Amino acid sequence: MSYVQRLHDRIRQTGTPALVGLDPRLDQIPAELRDAAASPAAAFEAFSREVIDVVSGLVPAVKPQSAFFEACGPDGVAALARVVRHARDAGLLVILDAKRGDIGSTAEAYAAAYLAGEDPDAAPVAADALTVNPYLGPDTLEPFVDRARDAGAGLYVLVRTSNPQSAGFQDAARDGRRVFEIVGDTLDAINAAGETHDGYGPVGAVAGATYPQELTDLRRRLPHTPFLIPGYGSQGGTAADVADAFDAGGLGGLVNSSRAILFAYQKGRYAEEFGEARWREAVRAATEDMIADLRTHTPAANLRRDSAGP
Amino acid sequence: MSYVQRLHDRIRQTGTPALVGLDPRLDQIPAELRDAAASPAAAFEAFSREVIDVVSGLVPAVKPQSAFFEACGPDGVAALARVVRHARDAGLLVILDAKRGDIGSTAEAYAAAYLAGEDPDAAPVAADALTVNPYLGPDTLEPFVDRARDAGAGLYVLVRTSNPQSAGFQDAARDGRRVFEIVGDTLDAINAAGETHDGYGPVGAVAGATYPQELTDLRRRLPHTPFLIPGYGSQGGTAADVADAFDAGGLGGLVNSSRAILFAYQKGRYAEEFGEARWREAVRAATEDMIADLRTHTPAANLRRDSAGP
Repeated sequence: MSYVQRLHDRIRQTGTPALVGLDPRLDQIPAELRDAAASPAAAFEAFSREVIDVVSGLVPAVKPQSAFFEACGPDGVAALARVVRHARDAGLLVILDAKRGDIGSTAEAYAAAYLAGEDPDAAPVAADALTVNPYLGPDTLEPFVDRARDAGAGLYVLVRTSNPQSAGFQDAARDGRRVFEIVGDTLDAINAAGETHDGYGPVGAVAGATYPQELTDLRRRLPHTPFLIPGYGSQGGTAADVADAFDAGGLGGLVNSSRAILFAYQKGRYAEEFGEARWREAVRAATEDMIADLRTHTPAANLRRDSAGP
Repeated sequence: MSYVQRLHDRIRQTGTPALVGLDPRLDQIPAELRDAAASPAAAFEAFSREVIDVVSGLVPAVKPQSAFFEACGPDGVAALARVVRHARDAGLLVILDAKRGDIGSTAEAYAAAYLAGEDPDAAPVAADALTVNPYLGPDTLEPFVDRARDAGAGLYVLVRTSNPQSAGFQDAARDGRRVFEIVGDTLDAINAAGETHDGYGPVGAVAGATYPQELTDLRRRLPHTPFLIPGYGSQGGTAADVADAFDAGGLGGLVNSSRAILFAYQKGRYAEEFGEARWREAVRAATEDMIADLRTHTPAANLRRDSAGP
């Protein structure tokens, strides 16, 4: 089954395009877990597993951030592999945020490392999808695309990122098209040339909620390309900002929130209502609030839920 | 001691800017090592250690390719960490080729994972320098630069890569400057604003030997920026192609060769003279031939060797 088919099944089951980012930060992990863990890697694993247990059934997918696990060294990567497996076992799709990119056989090695797709034993860190950096050029995307198609896996290639200076290099232009538009057009052409599901191919685009006009333009421009949308929540993007990233049926995008969900217990009304002792309830409440926010302000309201859903 | 000072000390000791890339590929590793190893990760480690033992004293630095180790999972990353340590112990600088890039605290996590700089205990995979992908924007380079300066580490940011379609996204332009020139100018401004050694700062540029005109233009354009030059050897770049990447004294660049050295025993006169049984001698001969080639056709001939040199 293709990546998009598996993704859309889960989006329809849960009725939401909300994506929970797993960005463990040692100084923000609840003290009970930190104190019980033998190492930072163990704390990251325990925390991530608990978050997964809270959000499974609520959202279609999670997005672990590889960098935080890599900062713990080989033990961190081993913890990441187990976290990915745990999320899959809990029925979630896993989008590994590792932003890899390289040429030829080196790109093949990255794809082999992380793109398991349908078969959870097909890669040592067995993600369903991987974020990819396109800077090196269109030829360097091919090994990732080939692997994704073979394995029933997905890709999300950086197009217009959510950070303040993303225009710095992404807005240069050639023949009237800006770099991020050239990258996006490349992805949509790949998707249009191959098998699609609900009109979408497996090669997604990362486009930030912090640039709503570009996001709107990209949806019109790239009709066959699923989006991964960072920047909602902590970075300032709102549900209204991401509304145009969806098609009328509520498909076509996943909206990510990381810190605002993981560490909800530290902020605002979640801190008051739950506090650190009830941090799991804060994660659940923040996730449910995000889902409701997307239902109110985006076409996610039009997602028909499958009877198999919760 | 700054990264550039440590690098230039070793370049002067060895009298060459040749860099050996450690790209282990299971199907090309000599059978004696492959058969003796319990796993691909163990084979990669054994092979890389032996190559390091052959080339230490001949060249200033090695460049392990992280992707091949990552493809072996957590055990591969553990093997990589030991290979890096072994190279440092052998007196080589280590440039980890991992092409990382992300925003804010995520970039900090990657820097903490790999940029040890002077202190071999300062990171789990303790490289002296790291390759970085700039696509996300100039703000995303800052955490890497801060860490490099603090740790006495180096960076090599992708500018103009060596692959056939590198112009695809890197040649778009803004106000008359192409993307790779904008990236390069950003790096040179960072270097010019901080401490330099022999005129160079710690923020290097990756510029391929396969585009000699761009390489020549970049050297003139970026006088404070050290280059890492892939594409020599197997990818078709020649010593003449890289000659203009150096200053008159022979500094300012490192020229990488990976496959043509590692697997020399499989090709041409090295296959005839040495063959698989004497693959270590083939590595040594190919390295010495590269060094001689750079001495003949580039300003590397002008490197004055320190008395401490071999």
